[in-house]
Amino acid sequence: MDELDRTARALDAEHAATDLRARFELPPDVVYLDGNSLGPLARGVGDAVARVVEQEWGRGLVGSWNDAGWWEAPLRVGDRIGRLVGAAPGQVAVGDSTSVRLYQSLHAAAALRPGRRTVLADPSSFPTDLYVLASVARQVGWQIALLSPDDVPARLSGSDDVAAVVLSHVDYRTGRLWDLPGVTAAAHAAGAVTVWDLCHSAGAVPVDLDEHGVDLAVGCTYKYLNGGPGAPAFGYVAHRHQDAFANVLAGWTGHADPFAMSGTYVPAPGVARARVGTPPILSLAALDAALVVLDDVDVRAVRRRSSSLTAFLRACLEALVPGTRFASPADDDRRGSQVSVRHDEAWGIVRALAARGVVGDHRPGIARLGVGAPYLTHADMLTAARTFEAVLAGGEHRAAEHRVRPTVT
Amino acid sequence: MDELDRTARALDAEHAATDLRARFELPPDVVYLDGNSLGPLARGVGDAVARVVEQEWGRGLVGSWNDAGWWEAPLRVGDRIGRLVGAAPGQVAVGDSTSVRLYQSLHAAAALRPGRRTVLADPSSFPTDLYVLASVARQVGWQIALLSPDDVPARLSGSDDVAAVVLSHVDYRTGRLWDLPGVTAAAHAAGAVTVWDLCHSAGAVPVDLDEHGVDLAVGCTYKYLNGGPGAPAFGYVAHRHQDAFANVLAGWTGHADPFAMSGTYVPAPGVARARVGTPPILSLAALDAALVVLDDVDVRAVRRRSSSLTAFLRACLEALVPGTRFASPADDDRRGSQVSVRHDEAWGIVRALAARGVVGDHRPGIARLGVGAPYLTHADMLTAARTFEAVLAGGEHRAAEHRVRPTVT
Repeated sequence: MDELDRTARALDAEHAATDLRARFELPPDVVYLDGNSLGPLARGVGDAVARVVEQEWGRGLVGSWNDAGWWEAPLRVGDRIGRLVGAAPGQVAVGDSTSVRLYQSLHAAAALRPGRRTVLADPSSFPTDLYVLASVARQVGWQIALLSPDDVPARLSGSDDVAAVVLSHVDYRTGRLWDLPGVTAAAHAAGAVTVWDLCHSAGAVPVDLDEHGVDLAVGCTYKYLNGGPGAPAFGYVAHRHQDAFANVLAGWTGHADPFAMSGTYVPAPGVARARVGTPPILSLAALDAALVVLDDVDVRAVRRRSSSLTAFLRACLEALVPGTRFASPADDDRRGSQVSVRHDEAWGIVRALAARGVVGDHRPGIARLGVGAPYLTHADMLTAARTFEAVLAGGEHRAAEHRVRPTVT
Repeated sequence: MDELDRTARALDAEHAATDLRARFELPPDVVYLDGNSLGPLARGVGDAVARVVEQEWGRGLVGSWNDAGWWEAPLRVGDRIGRLVGAAPGQVAVGDSTSVRLYQSLHAAAALRPGRRTVLADPSSFPTDLYVLASVARQVGWQIALLSPDDVPARLSGSDDVAAVVLSHVDYRTGRLWDLPGVTAAAHAAGAVTVWDLCHSAGAVPVDLDEHGVDLAVGCTYKYLNGGPGAPAFGYVAHRHQDAFANVLAGWTGHADPFAMSGTYVPAPGVARARVGTPPILSLAALDAALVVLDDVDVRAVRRRSSSLTAFLRACLEALVPGTRFASPADDDRRGSQVSVRHDEAWGIVRALAARGVVGDHRPGIARLGVGAPYLTHADMLTAARTFEAVLAGGEHRAAEHRVRPTVT
């Protein structure tokens, strides 16, 4: 046992109280560093889904919309997510994909700031954010200004034409954690609203939406919330904006009295007006059961564990793989819950790591090692770094079998 | 055994080849007449979902996006639906809700007919259709003309300003089956495109989208396709419109090269460009397994069985409940797969029927008895009519316990 082993052991002892691996059904032979793409299966999820399928659907049939609480699920599960992102109850609706939620939120932002013609966004955003923004901008007549989140406050200063600032809380490639409180305050000082994409922070980093006065936010639930493949996204609408929230996706479930079957859309009070179509109950059931696992968890504790894990992973890579070029920040406070390494052969590295049981993922030019803190240990970080070292030392990343098409976020 | 029993028995013998009840896990003590709201659980669906949860997600983790075919599922399942609605492969994408699909399709229709300012729709459409249409119309500058589908061809004649005709194939309340071929031809003659809502016909009535030259269509999958509560919807884009199909919901999964993570949206070739965000894999898995049950089924055979069942249900009600006011047409060719009865106390009737194991549903002023032909028999129709008779005779529909809030479509 060398010094790194001893350090790992000491850190794991120090953080033993936040080790929740027993709550997840991870294969024993895998170090799973792709929970920022697809979180693992939590215990109880399989049984919960089976119960919904066999009992609620199979036996309860259509009556389960009322009897099993299906109809209310998008808001009930929304409140469960709300606790994890610092939103008091009644501000989060679940359903649809992040792309759809973002489209809806951007239109709502435009309606909150009519007459303003500029929207600020980060050119390094996840592609969907840019694609959807471009679509909405064409529809509402926005000019898109692309700039680093670091430069947003200066750009806002003295401006009176910015309608909205649309940013990711954590960069999906580099793991850079942006200054949500500062940017939000700067936006408000300039009369703009904020639309935050929380895909890479919800469940991993304290967000504190209410505390920082965020206006609108969206996020997916299949990363650090472990909701399952393609689990429904969520949208946050701050209480103060709900009366003015204009839902262009005016589906019937957001109606004030959906069962009156009126021909005229009257939006429901509260965040219910952000509902769109009939919610995907099976996917929602998995998400709900996955969130139960986090019900007694404080995101600040997850964050402390995560910072320690990612800092240790960086230290191990620096020690074992000299010359590692990190895309993710060294400063704990600026780093989300991942360690990204720049490498021209990142794709081969990720494939070779996976062949040895260390599952990360690839983004162009980057090997991305995501850290779902609740189910990972410092010993896992050391294993990952040693495997990284072995892959490079043996040239395994250049093997022919590691040249197939990329996997999905 | 009276004459109606003998007739039921004879008809069930005549239609024995299309009795597929053994493929469904219906409770034995229920006559389920709400499959037009939520189709029942098909055998094999529970196992399929459990396999996706425990094996593909739990053990395969993120690799299942490739290894288990998750990424391709929206188009693979789309082709499975395509066969049932008369669409050759490569024209149907699955995902999102009907509301979202409709919003997307209406925008695409507007883009196909720029400069035209009128859209025709039925005021009796399911509410979501009208709400979403109103939203899109505001955005694209359409004037909405509401009229009965019967009057649409005359309205189109000589007109050169109609961009699109947006209709439901089957009316959700009355079960009226509209003339899809005739209206589509009339629309084309006037240079308009058609957007058909197939929620109440897909899987129950031959649609023959390709044969009739339909342009765009949407539909849900939780009614006669038995996909499960909130199962993802589908969108049809005819081959000839795919190159020009403008997807305002420009999510990353519809990109030509999604994993290049480019900042600029380049739509995929084919119907893949109608994809939006990350698809809900668990709900999709249930839908896929439910469709397997129909893989050897000809919708024309389902339709023949359905017409016989609904005609017999009407005959039984006429015989047993004199004065029944039908909202659904007497003519088999104009009736979808339901029998609707007008009654001022429809809500109480539906609740009292359910208390006796005959599950239908309620729409304002209408007791709606949906007929999922594959799992229902003529004997079930007679049971339903006799129960209807008993409920009215005993005044059970006026009991206090039948005055709670309505159930969901």
